[in-house]
Amino acid sequence: MTTIRKQQGNFLEDFRPGLVLRHKRGKTITEGLFAIFTDFSMTTNPLSKNVRYARAYGYHGLVVPPGLVMLVVFSQSVEDVSENARVNLEYIDMRFGVPVYVGDTLEAETKVLGVKVSSRDPDRGVVHVQTTGRNQDGQVVLTFQRKVQVWKRDLTAAVTEGEVPPDDVPTALELPAYDPKRPYRELAYLSTGDSYAEDFRVGDVIEHSRGRVVTTDHIMLTGILDNTSQVHCNQWMIDSEPERYLGGQLIVFGGIPFNLCLGLSCPDIADNALADVRYATGRHTAPIFAGDTVFASSEIRAVREFPGRPDLALLDTILRGHKFVRKEGKAERVEIFYLERESAVKRRSHYA
Amino acid sequence: MTTIRKQQGNFLEDFRPGLVLRHKRGKTITEGLFAIFTDFSMTTNPLSKNVRYARAYGYHGLVVPPGLVMLVVFSQSVEDVSENARVNLEYIDMRFGVPVYVGDTLEAETKVLGVKVSSRDPDRGVVHVQTTGRNQDGQVVLTFQRKVQVWKRDLTAAVTEGEVPPDDVPTALELPAYDPKRPYRELAYLSTGDSYAEDFRVGDVIEHSRGRVVTTDHIMLTGILDNTSQVHCNQWMIDSEPERYLGGQLIVFGGIPFNLCLGLSCPDIADNALADVRYATGRHTAPIFAGDTVFASSEIRAVREFPGRPDLALLDTILRGHKFVRKEGKAERVEIFYLERESAVKRRSHYA
Amino acid sequence: MTTIRKQQGNFLEDFRPGLVLRHKRGKTITEGLFAIFTDFSMTTNPLSKNVRYARAYGYHGLVVPPGLVMLVVFSQSVEDVSENARVNLEYIDMRFGVPVYVGDTLEAETKVLGVKVSSRDPDRGVVHVQTTGRNQDGQVVLTFQRKVQVWKRDLTAAVTEGEVPPDDVPTALELPAYDPKRPYRELAYLSTGDSYAEDFRVGDVIEHSRGRVVTTDHIMLTGILDNTSQVHCNQWMIDSEPERYLGGQLIVFGGIPFNLCLGLSCPDIADNALADVRYATGRHTAPIFAGDTVFASSEIRAVREFPGRPDLALLDTILRGHKFVRKEGKAERVEIFYLERESAVKRRSHYA
Repeated sequence: MTTIRKQQGNFLEDFRPGLVLRHKRGKTITEGLFAIFTDFSMTTNPLSKNVRYARAYGYHGLVVPPGLVMLVVFSQSVEDVSENARVNLEYIDMRFGVPVYVGDTLEAETKVLGVKVSSRDPDRGVVHVQTTGRNQDGQVVLTFQRKVQVWKRDLTAAVTEGEVPPDDVPTALELPAYDPKRPYRELAYLSTGDSYAEDFRVGDVIEHSRGRVVTTDHIMLTGILDNTSQVHCNQWMIDSEPERYLGGQLIVFGGIPFNLCLGLSCPDIADNALADVRYATGRHTAPIFAGDTVFASSEIRAVREFPGRPDLALLDTILRGHKFVRKEGKAERVEIFYLERESAVKRRSHYA
Repeated sequence: MTTIRKQQGNFLEDFRPGLVLRHKRGKTITEGLFAIFTDFSMTTNPLSKNVRYARAYGYHGLVVPPGLVMLVVFSQSVEDVSENARVNLEYIDMRFGVPVYVGDTLEAETKVLGVKVSSRDPDRGVVHVQTTGRNQDGQVVLTFQRKVQVWKRDLTAAVTEGEVPPDDVPTALELPAYDPKRPYRELAYLSTGDSYAEDFRVGDVIEHSRGRVVTTDHIMLTGILDNTSQVHCNQWMIDSEPERYLGGQLIVFGGIPFNLCLGLSCPDIADNALADVRYATGRHTAPIFAGDTVFASSEIRAVREFPGRPDLALLDTILRGHKFVRKEGKAERVEIFYLERESAVKRRSHYA
Repeated sequence: MTTIRKQQGNFLEDFRPGLVLRHKRGKTITEGLFAIFTDFSMTTNPLSKNVRYARAYGYHGLVVPPGLVMLVVFSQSVEDVSENARVNLEYIDMRFGVPVYVGDTLEAETKVLGVKVSSRDPDRGVVHVQTTGRNQDGQVVLTFQRKVQVWKRDLTAAVTEGEVPPDDVPTALELPAYDPKRPYRELAYLSTGDSYAEDFRVGDVIEHSRGRVVTTDHIMLTGILDNTSQVHCNQWMIDSEPERYLGGQLIVFGGIPFNLCLGLSCPDIADNALADVRYATGRHTAPIFAGDTVFASSEIRAVREFPGRPDLALLDTILRGHKFVRKEGKAERVEIFYLERESAVKRRSHYA
């Protein structure tokens, strides 16, 4: 009798620049997944709530919000890329493609762009990847790079360091055309009235009013996403070796506060967005644990023309998440998330 | 740079009698929302469990149970009506309309019927509203009044007090006709055998046998309903100023015990109901917190003719919820919920 | 006024050999139920994740995994069979029938095979039953026997002891035929590459790499399954009489670790299974409580011919679940679940 413990996921020495990983499984977006995540995250955009509204705009059905598209594609890459990661360092050039609907099946693949051993801690290193998700018709729904710090399995193993350039992955938003015969104005009461392109003033910072505590529900949410990383759900592993893990407790999957921040900002920033276009860069600046309440703010950076779409504008914001920590009786604000965000926002002149 | 904190929801001085609020978003009832709430609440009526049974009765599909119809319509009104409320005082004349199915989109609007400053506590007052939910075809699915105690934002602001009469909102249940050719008797084993009209004796009180603890899952449930009230999910807000909030902890959204009580009573009272018709009045008589176990009882008040439907009866009950609290080592029963309820119940003579 | 407390479920003296119980309600498998359970349990087989893959294999849609079929059928039997049980003793000869899809409605009935009072504890006894679940077309999806220890309601009541033989319940798996024109190889990257029939060596024990903590989410999960047993969700009942209940706390419904063990073993054992065929015997060897982390291992017992299907093999494994308990500072491994399992596994020669 032989006892076998199969390796789950790759370690630093398993990556090499140029390697392409076709991720397993794929995921069909059921109404169950859609409801749990869209609503959990406090998304308010009626395109993801009200099918009558979404169809009136020319979408085929309820639109999967950008945060859920990100979660479904990202989570598919976890086993191969970050199941043995210590920390996710950065999202880079995350671009959205065609709209995603309930019933779509998303599959993902990842190209390794760079591998580098840490000069300070030789038991770990940085892996730089490019992940792309496509729907059942092969259309790109999301592509992004990320950098992640991954453990070595064997301290003495050789690591193939190096870098290759990212692939050119064209994305097409395929937003429904503007059609003055559609009942936009009649339905305008369903979204917030002060989040059209005309409402944003460069330099303003909007402190989003709501907060939401993360409970142990994060474990269920992460599991439902097929995110297999053990640091989110294996209590025994953490308790047996707490000093090895950030904070010595189960850490909340970054996708949860990522989505919550998008949702908390939604009434002020994205209730009248047709889509999020691109996140130039993003990172988790502090960990979240069960019991933390997540808040968010948005800084308005620019309101720009949307080429070929006079009914829309491109809105540049910085979305920041934060929590409060009590230190010596005083509440200290701790930034937990940073995202440079570009959204396609409706103009009041055309829609309300 | 200007920091903006947008107001969420209205305060006492923002209401005036006669004001009509068309609520934002609307909500399509996905299979995800349906499954989570119907089943969480321990509903047992096969019309909401078994599509084969529902279709045999002439419904188009799984029937959304009355508690979920209530939650979806009510929650849409929270932002405009009660996001800044201290407490929900009373439900009045809650009447159900046409059946609601998975896939339907419900939208809601509210008319302000009355505004009154508290004579004792000038920082708050009572707002009396009438809320109506409609499906995508404009048919009324639910209409009700409620009274809620709302904070003032600015103690010195003027309040437009007064009252206006409620609108006349006709409702039509549209229950499927009785058809002796349908296989009611063949399917009768799927519902409880002792909850037909003939089984109820006026004056009896049925202590429903089951109980269900509410955990922190209430936070997720409330979020999935788009209920944005912060007292249910913003732990930091509560912890920073516990004396301001009832019980000094996150309070469970009243819709959760409302639904649980309906569900706990279902095998005894509503397993053979085609619909709930009307809740004349209802109120939450004590708060529920995570860790409380909810129980329910029903008092039989009347069994009446259903005009034009000899196969049905109108059953009047009082549904009460309770929990137990330990005081000096003794268990004390505390009423948490009171609802005067009228249901359309099948007669055994016609169905079993 | 009379106060009535209706009995929920049967007690030992209510059973008699040969009695047939047609269970109430039935359950339509919505996309909500499907998503929550398939994904919660960490199932990885793409037949239950990716509709494009499932259809390419000849299935009509996403395949409900065996653990969820078991949960839906089993839970329907709880009220009549085990709501008043102390403990579930054994699963026997659990056989799967036709594939189950989202949208199917499952109904169940149970025949009592044996009743026996405990010779040591006359307040309880063993009930032996045979439960069969069918879909809306009357096809068997699952049939199994189980033995359960049930309380007596009235210590002095007579019990009809005895035994009757089980019914002969034929099952047909109805697996899609092998068709070399289908794109199996093209899609092979979506499942694990080392879990084909050729990969298993008799005698090996595979320690599955992942673990998953069970939180209070078990209460919600059990409710969503319509499992009405109070020991899983009635906190007040347990707290009032802890010495009566196993462990003195809410016990996790056995179906939860049953499913988790199936899911944890999935990448290594069942990622390339078309179906689970039969569980000859199974039992919960220790209880699970909120806070426990569930792990699993599989012992390879045999790889056999699948009559008439050269593309498949029958894989016999023993699936064991375990948790760790700290005793005097040391981690002790405690077996929690034992299942003799037979799966229909693809051969690499035909599929990859």
